[in-house]
Amino acid sequence: MPDIVDAVKRVLVGRPVRSENLGETLLPKRVAFPVFSSDALSSVAYAPDEILLMLSIAGLASYAISPWVGLAVVVVLLTVVASYRQTVRAYPSGGGDYEVATKNLGGTAGLTVGSALLVDYVLTVAVSVSSGSQYLATVLPAARGHEAAIAIGIVALLALLNLRGVRESGRGFALPVYVFMAAMGAMALAGGVQWLSGSLGAAESAAFELTAEPGYEEGLVGLAGAFLVLRAFTSGAAALTGVEAIANGVPAFQRPKSKNAARTLLLLGAVSTFMLTTVLGLASATGVRFVDDPATQLRLGGEPVPDGYQQDPVIGQVAQTVFAGFPPMFYVVTVTTGLILLLAANTAFNGFPVLGSILARDGFLPRQLHTRGDRLAFSNGILILAFAAIVLIWVFDARVTALIQLYIVGVFVSFTLGQLGMVRHWNRELNTESSTRERTRMKRSRAINGFGFALTAVVLVVVLITKTAQGAWITIALMVVLFAVMRGIRRHYDLVAQELTLATPEEIEDAKALPARVHAVVLVSKVHKPTMRALAYARATRPSTLQAITVAVDPEDAAQTRAAWDAAGIPLPLTVLDSPFREITRPVLEYVRSLRRSSPRDLVVVYVPEYVVGHWWEQLLHNQSALRLKGRLLFTPGVVMASVPWQLNSSRDVAHTLAVGEPGQQPGDLPGPGAVRRGR
Amino acid sequence: MPDIVDAVKRVLVGRPVRSENLGETLLPKRVAFPVFSSDALSSVAYAPDEILLMLSIAGLASYAISPWVGLAVVVVLLTVVASYRQTVRAYPSGGGDYEVATKNLGGTAGLTVGSALLVDYVLTVAVSVSSGSQYLATVLPAARGHEAAIAIGIVALLALLNLRGVRESGRGFALPVYVFMAAMGAMALAGGVQWLSGSLGAAESAAFELTAEPGYEEGLVGLAGAFLVLRAFTSGAAALTGVEAIANGVPAFQRPKSKNAARTLLLLGAVSTFMLTTVLGLASATGVRFVDDPATQLRLGGEPVPDGYQQDPVIGQVAQTVFAGFPPMFYVVTVTTGLILLLAANTAFNGFPVLGSILARDGFLPRQLHTRGDRLAFSNGILILAFAAIVLIWVFDARVTALIQLYIVGVFVSFTLGQLGMVRHWNRELNTESSTRERTRMKRSRAINGFGFALTAVVLVVVLITKTAQGAWITIALMVVLFAVMRGIRRHYDLVAQELTLATPEEIEDAKALPARVHAVVLVSKVHKPTMRALAYARATRPSTLQAITVAVDPEDAAQTRAAWDAAGIPLPLTVLDSPFREITRPVLEYVRSLRRSSPRDLVVVYVPEYVVGHWWEQLLHNQSALRLKGRLLFTPGVVMASVPWQLNSSRDVAHTLAVGEPGQQPGDLPGPGAVRRGR
Repeated sequence: MPDIVDAVKRVLVGRPVRSENLGETLLPKRVAFPVFSSDALSSVAYAPDEILLMLSIAGLASYAISPWVGLAVVVVLLTVVASYRQTVRAYPSGGGDYEVATKNLGGTAGLTVGSALLVDYVLTVAVSVSSGSQYLATVLPAARGHEAAIAIGIVALLALLNLRGVRESGRGFALPVYVFMAAMGAMALAGGVQWLSGSLGAAESAAFELTAEPGYEEGLVGLAGAFLVLRAFTSGAAALTGVEAIANGVPAFQRPKSKNAARTLLLLGAVSTFMLTTVLGLASATGVRFVDDPATQLRLGGEPVPDGYQQDPVIGQVAQTVFAGFPPMFYVVTVTTGLILLLAANTAFNGFPVLGSILARDGFLPRQLHTRGDRLAFSNGILILAFAAIVLIWVFDARVTALIQLYIVGVFVSFTLGQLGMVRHWNRELNTESSTRERTRMKRSRAINGFGFALTAVVLVVVLITKTAQGAWITIALMVVLFAVMRGIRRHYDLVAQELTLATPEEIEDAKALPARVHAVVLVSKVHKPTMRALAYARATRPSTLQAITVAVDPEDAAQTRAAWDAAGIPLPLTVLDSPFREITRPVLEYVRSLRRSSPRDLVVVYVPEYVVGHWWEQLLHNQSALRLKGRLLFTPGVVMASVPWQLNSSRDVAHTLAVGEPGQQPGDLPGPGAVRRGR
Repeated sequence: MPDIVDAVKRVLVGRPVRSENLGETLLPKRVAFPVFSSDALSSVAYAPDEILLMLSIAGLASYAISPWVGLAVVVVLLTVVASYRQTVRAYPSGGGDYEVATKNLGGTAGLTVGSALLVDYVLTVAVSVSSGSQYLATVLPAARGHEAAIAIGIVALLALLNLRGVRESGRGFALPVYVFMAAMGAMALAGGVQWLSGSLGAAESAAFELTAEPGYEEGLVGLAGAFLVLRAFTSGAAALTGVEAIANGVPAFQRPKSKNAARTLLLLGAVSTFMLTTVLGLASATGVRFVDDPATQLRLGGEPVPDGYQQDPVIGQVAQTVFAGFPPMFYVVTVTTGLILLLAANTAFNGFPVLGSILARDGFLPRQLHTRGDRLAFSNGILILAFAAIVLIWVFDARVTALIQLYIVGVFVSFTLGQLGMVRHWNRELNTESSTRERTRMKRSRAINGFGFALTAVVLVVVLITKTAQGAWITIALMVVLFAVMRGIRRHYDLVAQELTLATPEEIEDAKALPARVHAVVLVSKVHKPTMRALAYARATRPSTLQAITVAVDPEDAAQTRAAWDAAGIPLPLTVLDSPFREITRPVLEYVRSLRRSSPRDLVVVYVPEYVVGHWWEQLLHNQSALRLKGRLLFTPGVVMASVPWQLNSSRDVAHTLAVGEPGQQPGDLPGPGAVRRGR
């Protein structure tokens, strides 16, 4: 199996990259911008929809408030951008809010941010890809009804692209982002000109009547109305996710890293604001309707909407109206929006593994997540993210409006704690800094972060109030579980480290003490070449005592073995162990234990002959007794298991094929991976 | 994980049984009969149905021929029983037709029988359990439409029961078989009395008109008619499967094994004949209709049958008519018939693993199948059988009429080759036997087997002609594949054995030659207790040279390790290996290879410190580098991998819990199984 896996991996993931080449994968701004900003930009594909959808509950009149909701989102967005510009300058290592919170607020705050962001990355992938597959269904009717399956396939594809490494992904992803920006710019321009000249048409859905839900007949009044506006705002605030991706991605920028990242942040803020404003403005001007359930909420001349009415996303409806005279542009806008959503998921594929690696470095996650894969991407993190997102998409059947309720809790937890940490950071810096100019700069930064903290804290409270019951409790529960698990992992590592540390000079001296004598035990199943090799190797180490043992699972076989042993003239008696339960493991264990009991200060080395086979199917044909025996024997202190391999011819063929088959390697340099089983 | 698995296994499967207790699980005839005969007996539940179903294609008139078809089946059945009575006497070891064919006709014939029977056992389970779940649906309307799911669940349950061991299964299964026989006897008696007294009613379905299918309007005439009769016969011949189960089960009988088995065979023949005759006779007398598709084939007063008409199995219809005055008996008959079908599947669970074990002993299947499980059942075989049957049920959606087309090909291949082998056997025996009395007995046996061969060969040809296109090609294809795979496995084992055999005295002397010197290499990841232990053990073996090496995946870590090394005052330099690809495996491999190259006649022992953890989740938290390294290093000749375990505290807890938690074991006797990972 491993040889096949290896070959497939090479084809899909590409060849390994040397550590020195790590520098080569740094991104210039023109590539870093699309890679790290597509998440934030793409939210324009669903954030306006969710704002209108929420407001539609209170009837058509409430749509008038949508520009104000959009404005509130923009204000928070720009505040967060300004705050992060301080963060990337102060902490250019890519730890982002996690590092800021850990260093300034302590481990618990840091771990809270870590759990929050991990969960939110997963949601970014789930929401973006689900929305993207709905855009696909807009232009490709055949895809309708299969959105979840398509979304899951896309996540798998993205994971694969990212396993190939960040640079190639970045290059491939840059073009669509710029095409999308151009398309949105063209739509803004055309729409604006038409609006000014009075020639802007009405959207198809503008003809529908929009009835308020029961309880909202009076529109946005009272507590219920205010609550609805807040829900619209928090749904729209999904536009803010992805901003932290740049802060976490600083190490991937070309030098000067912090400066380039800060500039990219500014560009992102400007472009996002422009897009959100454009879509909400044009939607309002063309009279677009967007509701949760068209069948019950929309009516046409008093009748329900016709069967099979497909409610296009807001951007699609606007594009259809603005480009009524030139339909191809509708397809350009819709398709690039769909693409950009898929690339948004890619942002999470960049951010999640980096964060996971940092958490693993700090002992909160298994060490495997800290290991860079062959292609310098954090392979394990990518795989885990893809798996979690696929589960979410599957559970929620790729419904964006349901998923959006789980979204952004984590991001705002991270924003708030991160900004609070930055305020502390500047306070501490100010304590030691004496240069007046520097102090002024720091105070300005502190003011920005302070305002950022206050605003994001308020938004976090609003998010918790409006979304917890709608599904965000799932996010919160996941965060709590993740927090507990990560804390438990850290405790495990700490305990193990403590157990293994050579704390005192006495412990070091104790550890240097040698066992008095060495008892060698050779396991014999048959008298054949692997056994003879194990015996020869055992004898070569000149142990104090040497015993050959065999287990009599079948008395006839045992008698044969003993006869062959005598016939071979081996100058050593063969000890036959009884096995009433037809097991191999237990009698050997008991024998070794009895050796240990009679001389507890000695060392017992058990020599096990093993076959090395070349094909995965050959493994199935040989017994696993050796592995089981080893798993048990290792529990006994003072015992060493020595595997004496016998290379079957087939294993040599595989080793040769692999060495020859991969150019650039020394022949015989990398033997084929293979299977090891007990020789019997 | 393993500790949980072990505990679950104990609860579900029971405690291990000692080899000496093997004798205890031998079955007295009164238990052996139900265990090994339920397959053959149960076929009365579907064989008559399939005969009527086939004949119904040619219209109602053709039903008149059904007793004759039944009679033909009975003749073949009794012939096969008589033949097998010779087989169990001549070959009491349980090898059945496989052994007979191998010994008398050669390996190819034996392996053909082996493949045929393996496939047929799977079909026995699939057909019986599918039919059983249809009986369940007769009395439990809620089960309708879920037959496949129920059947799959039942197969899983049967597998579990059999993993607990043959005796308990036998005991638990004896009662229902006897109740079934009593119920069928009561039905025969009541039906017979009613028929004689002229009070026997008509079945509900007797009112239906049965229209012939297009092309059969004239009834059973011409080639098509003859073909249909043959198809009815071969479907009815499904009653013959299971007879060989007794021949294969001889070793499970109490002594005198052969005699008891032969008597059981005779009893089986008598009971089977009686039941088949009863059901077909009463079905004919009560006018039961049974068709493939009631909606198109049955009409009532010219109209199609009412919607929702549920066609009960023939036994159910007969019981309903005979016991019209006492409905509870209908339920007794139906429920026991359903139960007996499930027990029939159990016959295969007894036969398949025994045959698999014999094939494994002869090197045609992986050796694991030859190993008796804890409870003296052949666990691996049971699991494979259950899996294959579940796949078949799932693919054919538990439809008996479809599955029956795949059935009995294998059984008749086995019958035919087995009887031919027996004829050869007697011929050979006659060559050496001089006693006239014995010779007479042998000639009689030979005559019986000769007739058996001729008849089963004819039936086999008929089966091939009538069933291949209907689905039996699947069975034949599976048999061919299985044959090829088993032959390949045998070739592999032969090649390995040849490769490993010490053929000549020179080879034995060569194998005794010792390596000139021993080079010890200790892998260091950190300077902590596991490393120090590995170092101490390596030094204790007093190797010719001793080196400590570490891989510099991260230069900072490597510098720290070297500093700690020096601080500990270890009297040995630490060699740091470069790792441009951030791998651990490759640099170590290259280092060890270079050692080997410079002194190819020496032995290299690599000491790897490993953690032993107590919980499965702890495994996830430690690196798998050691396993990967080992997998690769074993490809290099002249290298021994020595695992030096460090038992973490958690592993001691688990070992203790397991030892204390299982009564009857010495404390500390059986350490918990556990996980082994590289200490890092």
